[in-house]
Amino acid sequence: MKAQRVEVFVCPSATPADTSGLQALVDAGKIKPDTLVALVGKTDGTGFHDDWGRIWADAALREWTAKLLGVAKDEVARHVIFVLSGGCPGVITPHIAAVTREWVEDAKPSTEKRLAVGRAGSESIAPEEVGRMGMIRKVASATHEAMEDAGIMDPKDVHLVMVKVPGLTVASIDDAESRGHTVVSHDLTFGPEGAGSYANDAAALGVAMALGEVPASRLSDDVVRRDWDLYSEVAMTSSGGEKRHGEVVVFGNSTASVSPLVIGHSVTKDFIDAQGVRDALRSAGLHFKDGLPDESDLGRLVHVFAKSVIPGSDQIRGQHITLLDDHNAYQIGKALGGMLVASVTGRTTNYVSGGERNSHQGPPGGNIVAAVVRTRE
Amino acid sequence: MKAQRVEVFVCPSATPADTSGLQALVDAGKIKPDTLVALVGKTDGTGFHDDWGRIWADAALREWTAKLLGVAKDEVARHVIFVLSGGCPGVITPHIAAVTREWVEDAKPSTEKRLAVGRAGSESIAPEEVGRMGMIRKVASATHEAMEDAGIMDPKDVHLVMVKVPGLTVASIDDAESRGHTVVSHDLTFGPEGAGSYANDAAALGVAMALGEVPASRLSDDVVRRDWDLYSEVAMTSSGGEKRHGEVVVFGNSTASVSPLVIGHSVTKDFIDAQGVRDALRSAGLHFKDGLPDESDLGRLVHVFAKSVIPGSDQIRGQHITLLDDHNAYQIGKALGGMLVASVTGRTTNYVSGGERNSHQGPPGGNIVAAVVRTRE
Amino acid sequence: MKAQRVEVFVCPSATPADTSGLQALVDAGKIKPDTLVALVGKTDGTGFHDDWGRIWADAALREWTAKLLGVAKDEVARHVIFVLSGGCPGVITPHIAAVTREWVEDAKPSTEKRLAVGRAGSESIAPEEVGRMGMIRKVASATHEAMEDAGIMDPKDVHLVMVKVPGLTVASIDDAESRGHTVVSHDLTFGPEGAGSYANDAAALGVAMALGEVPASRLSDDVVRRDWDLYSEVAMTSSGGEKRHGEVVVFGNSTASVSPLVIGHSVTKDFIDAQGVRDALRSAGLHFKDGLPDESDLGRLVHVFAKSVIPGSDQIRGQHITLLDDHNAYQIGKALGGMLVASVTGRTTNYVSGGERNSHQGPPGGNIVAAVVRTRE
Amino acid sequence: MKAQRVEVFVCPSATPADTSGLQALVDAGKIKPDTLVALVGKTDGTGFHDDWGRIWADAALREWTAKLLGVAKDEVARHVIFVLSGGCPGVITPHIAAVTREWVEDAKPSTEKRLAVGRAGSESIAPEEVGRMGMIRKVASATHEAMEDAGIMDPKDVHLVMVKVPGLTVASIDDAESRGHTVVSHDLTFGPEGAGSYANDAAALGVAMALGEVPASRLSDDVVRRDWDLYSEVAMTSSGGEKRHGEVVVFGNSTASVSPLVIGHSVTKDFIDAQGVRDALRSAGLHFKDGLPDESDLGRLVHVFAKSVIPGSDQIRGQHITLLDDHNAYQIGKALGGMLVASVTGRTTNYVSGGERNSHQGPPGGNIVAAVVRTRE
Repeated sequence: MKAQRVEVFVCPSATPADTSGLQALVDAGKIKPDTLVALVGKTDGTGFHDDWGRIWADAALREWTAKLLGVAKDEVARHVIFVLSGGCPGVITPHIAAVTREWVEDAKPSTEKRLAVGRAGSESIAPEEVGRMGMIRKVASATHEAMEDAGIMDPKDVHLVMVKVPGLTVASIDDAESRGHTVVSHDLTFGPEGAGSYANDAAALGVAMALGEVPASRLSDDVVRRDWDLYSEVAMTSSGGEKRHGEVVVFGNSTASVSPLVIGHSVTKDFIDAQGVRDALRSAGLHFKDGLPDESDLGRLVHVFAKSVIPGSDQIRGQHITLLDDHNAYQIGKALGGMLVASVTGRTTNYVSGGERNSHQGPPGGNIVAAVVRTRE
Repeated sequence: MKAQRVEVFVCPSATPADTSGLQALVDAGKIKPDTLVALVGKTDGTGFHDDWGRIWADAALREWTAKLLGVAKDEVARHVIFVLSGGCPGVITPHIAAVTREWVEDAKPSTEKRLAVGRAGSESIAPEEVGRMGMIRKVASATHEAMEDAGIMDPKDVHLVMVKVPGLTVASIDDAESRGHTVVSHDLTFGPEGAGSYANDAAALGVAMALGEVPASRLSDDVVRRDWDLYSEVAMTSSGGEKRHGEVVVFGNSTASVSPLVIGHSVTKDFIDAQGVRDALRSAGLHFKDGLPDESDLGRLVHVFAKSVIPGSDQIRGQHITLLDDHNAYQIGKALGGMLVASVTGRTTNYVSGGERNSHQGPPGGNIVAAVVRTRE
Repeated sequence: MKAQRVEVFVCPSATPADTSGLQALVDAGKIKPDTLVALVGKTDGTGFHDDWGRIWADAALREWTAKLLGVAKDEVARHVIFVLSGGCPGVITPHIAAVTREWVEDAKPSTEKRLAVGRAGSESIAPEEVGRMGMIRKVASATHEAMEDAGIMDPKDVHLVMVKVPGLTVASIDDAESRGHTVVSHDLTFGPEGAGSYANDAAALGVAMALGEVPASRLSDDVVRRDWDLYSEVAMTSSGGEKRHGEVVVFGNSTASVSPLVIGHSVTKDFIDAQGVRDALRSAGLHFKDGLPDESDLGRLVHVFAKSVIPGSDQIRGQHITLLDDHNAYQIGKALGGMLVASVTGRTTNYVSGGERNSHQGPPGGNIVAAVVRTRE
Repeated sequence: MKAQRVEVFVCPSATPADTSGLQALVDAGKIKPDTLVALVGKTDGTGFHDDWGRIWADAALREWTAKLLGVAKDEVARHVIFVLSGGCPGVITPHIAAVTREWVEDAKPSTEKRLAVGRAGSESIAPEEVGRMGMIRKVASATHEAMEDAGIMDPKDVHLVMVKVPGLTVASIDDAESRGHTVVSHDLTFGPEGAGSYANDAAALGVAMALGEVPASRLSDDVVRRDWDLYSEVAMTSSGGEKRHGEVVVFGNSTASVSPLVIGHSVTKDFIDAQGVRDALRSAGLHFKDGLPDESDLGRLVHVFAKSVIPGSDQIRGQHITLLDDHNAYQIGKALGGMLVASVTGRTTNYVSGGERNSHQGPPGGNIVAAVVRTRE
């Protein structure tokens, strides 16, 4: 039997261009050109629109990866998926997590489900489909393909789906309109009516559709960023104007994997719900004592992936907060998610993206937390 | 026997000028002109130097209190101590906590120690004493007097000391220098070498000296903002240029109190230490289950007072954070403290002040947390 | 003949609640309860959404005016129009300009046109009309009425029209949708697709329609915030969710006025066009020498009202600027307008509002500047 | 006769790492490995302490220059001086100005003075000398050497001196204190009492001493950042902890130059003084019409170098401004200088550095402006 063996290596980054940790993994034989599946990281910088830290990190990592794979820089994306989330406010340590997948021949069948990953590209998504059913359906299809690639049959075994989709640009809007189509928004930002937000949220609903979290019958153009009761518990999505099709990476558990790792997830019920973080870690097999991971278990925690979407309401458990009116809400919202996770994991190298207001990524007011844990053996 | 009965009432504020919650307490007979000791609050706004929310709140509360007491506005400070901390970033609900103390005649002696408060003004503090031994000694004396006023003998029974001291101004520096004295700093900010920071920290060391947390022999002008191993676990201090003497309010437990409340405190060992918050709540008598206050106990939590000084180091538990280089560190640092507390208390109406870097208020990298809890009876 | 005599008094504000300058004018008999038409000011604070400086100023000024007029606070708006623009970044001095209009009996007919003001309220504007033709038409009607009130016949004599209109709120959107209508946007911000921006811009087009700057035939729902070639050169507009009808104040010159003041205006052709500021001052009768008002003329400059809308393009005269990507663009954009005006007027007490991106207030990339000058006699 | 021929080429930068403009100049033969003297630029980004745009630009330019010169990256500094000022808020176009100096044999003696540049390194500056007389004297000596290198005898012919000096670091403070010395400040920031500010200002006084702008007899440790009446009209200085000695580049006019360029300078008298900008351009030979460079002259303007230090006072021409209390004062202060210059030059590719409060670079409240102009021939 041929089985996959997935590993996740977390490398702190001293600067946005720091690839030394990744290179050390290559030198140690842990990352090989044909096993590298994804680089998922938090980059040093403000996280705002003009955050050059993220852009520098992207350039440096792409160059490093091109060299590793022996391909041209603009071909890297065909081989390795990059998910770089800008901004490490507060207690989020800049880092890159390398996800590798090796195929092991003659593996003996596993009884326990272990971490499996799969990926797929979607069909090309036209600008008029961005943030609408067209995008939802194509992301749903790609999610199914990625599950297949991962060897995961049961949607319940999927614990994290990272998706990148096209956003809108001045050029792509012109293109759509010149062909007689409308677009979801002329606002190119990630604001409440921004095309970026619509794209991210349609992608999340695509995952929800694929996994059966939301029945197809309830989906339509009109529900995107309107009906917050429709959401995925495992989709983390991002969008960029320059892309033309979507990319999907599915993380789940499968008996077709001989990985030493397991993934689990949960959601927080609101913005201050540390219990949701604990539930995610438990879901992946950690035990707890007085709110913190059991000392002997803590070393088994490999990585946490969390969203920190800020709530659409100015109330938390009946009390008024002023975050929605804060000029720095985006940055502070992300920082707060970082604290919520770090206060439970006892470490700061957590992947926490977010800051936007409201999303179909996670329940209204709450957020997604996924955790990867090393098994005891 | 004459015994004090202390109460703490927490009123959310809809706007900086909102006194409706306080007025309702007056109307209900819970606050009386001669029982109001202190108003301690978090005010809506940015918390930055030009935060008009805090200034408006101060004006509105002073006007309201003057009317309540039937005194002129500029006499209010003689009767009621105002501690208004500006800035409610993230998950800190703007609120005012009214502290009242009523004297009960013929109280039967208590076997349990209960919440007691006492206050005292210091001798006048000259500008050349700000941030130096002169201030330290005068705050220490005033702390002793306030303990006496509270009926607390043992420093171990003191769990929170709020202090306001003079800072420096252009005028007071001129005054000192015209008399041939030097001042601790010409920087009028709360930056690392700012007069405001020196004033706050000398005040904290004054409390530490009074309570025996730091031996007098180790104190000198030179240790202020230099030797971080010297600190108080209970001092929360602030400073303003316009004052000429210090004000001290001591919160502790005493058998001379028949209050239904008890206070406790602890410190966090670092910036992400939720355990320190739990310890503070436990210290005041709450029980915990899986990291959160026991459901049946939660209703007994009256209020939490916490500092959120950001660490002087760019490392937390060996991992690099970028907070120290962040333009918004002051605001984000405060927000993070708010999350750490709220994630444990399950509510957002917590008093969390801070944002400055390094302090003798709490241990290096850690922070003070005090909690007031209603007893079961 | 009965003629109006308009005066404009500019009072610097030491704090948002400072009414001392206004009170001094009352005490000197320069402002009387029945002559006060409008208070137009820049308030101390950040200018962001949660700027309590502006809100405090509004509360304090409304209270002061109510006392002056002997009416209830919520009736003040019927008598005096408040235009308070928050945020004084950079070189904008916080100030309030009081506009008064006195009626002079038996005035001898003037040959020169002098400053005249008129005001009018619009019909009630429904939420479904906000940012659309309904609002445009109702503002246009009210502009005509205000011109009549001012005694101005020729649109060319109008140099400034200040307008306040309703924005949208969660409640008013619900109201519209419950009656089967759509609204222009669900984004309640002043962002590029925000309801606030649509409301401001429909109001500006309403003025442009009234003054014939834009032919009615070119106006439709679809041109608002789309066709930037349609604009007014004299409309300064703002919007707030709480209002139900619009308010219009027209400033122009008329022979029916015996005011010692004259108003003029011009527009800047782009964001760095100091020449446009000079043109505005010249339009009101000032002379210039080497870029600055002639020394002997400078004392006659009473006030400047300017917009500082940031350009929709990232190019100025063919060179790239990064302002559009700046997290603080709103604040910096306003500050830059303040500098452009102050560098010409040689003073910092200028009314400069703005910071939003793109508008029908002024030409694409440029801004409106109006100036009030005292005549020589 | 051997004469220098200096050129200044201004290349807009599309991103921090954009070296295409420089490379085009190399390809066109305008920059040669042995003629490149300095790269002086404004880099895209926030300009705050954690501005990765500036750091990326530095890395990319250093790599490009190393390749051009055929030397190792860490040897570039020996050959070419880098002055990269971070932050292009408002109307400052990111750009790099390349300064080249070619030696022309058998040049015929010039009657007119033309642009000459010279450079020199200072002696090593110990940490205990930073911000004090030691630094002042060593920068003064290096300024003399750089003048000699430039062939400039008369200090009046010097119009701009760019200086980089060491700042303080945790390590260099330890070094100084371990040897029994004190340091000027423990505050490592560029705040009012920060070591960075002291270093910059001592460097400026060093230039002032060398050029006779301030008599040596008035200089002492005590005047640095205290006596603002002592200043240079031509020094633009910066500091960084990593350096051990100072670097000085002098720009002036000399008959020993056959450059087609001329440099001039002036100072603004306060923060809104556009006249000072015009004076600087006139000093370099431009003519003006109504406040703007004469159309036919404008094409001759090669570049402007300006400081935008924010004033130490909250008054401009007797009017209150709130800039000193603004959380974003540093960024806004720089942006305002950019507008002041652009509103006169009619272009946005101006070098404008600043944002700090108070400096010996320029007079109290005012700033330095230098301009390079192409002669008519």
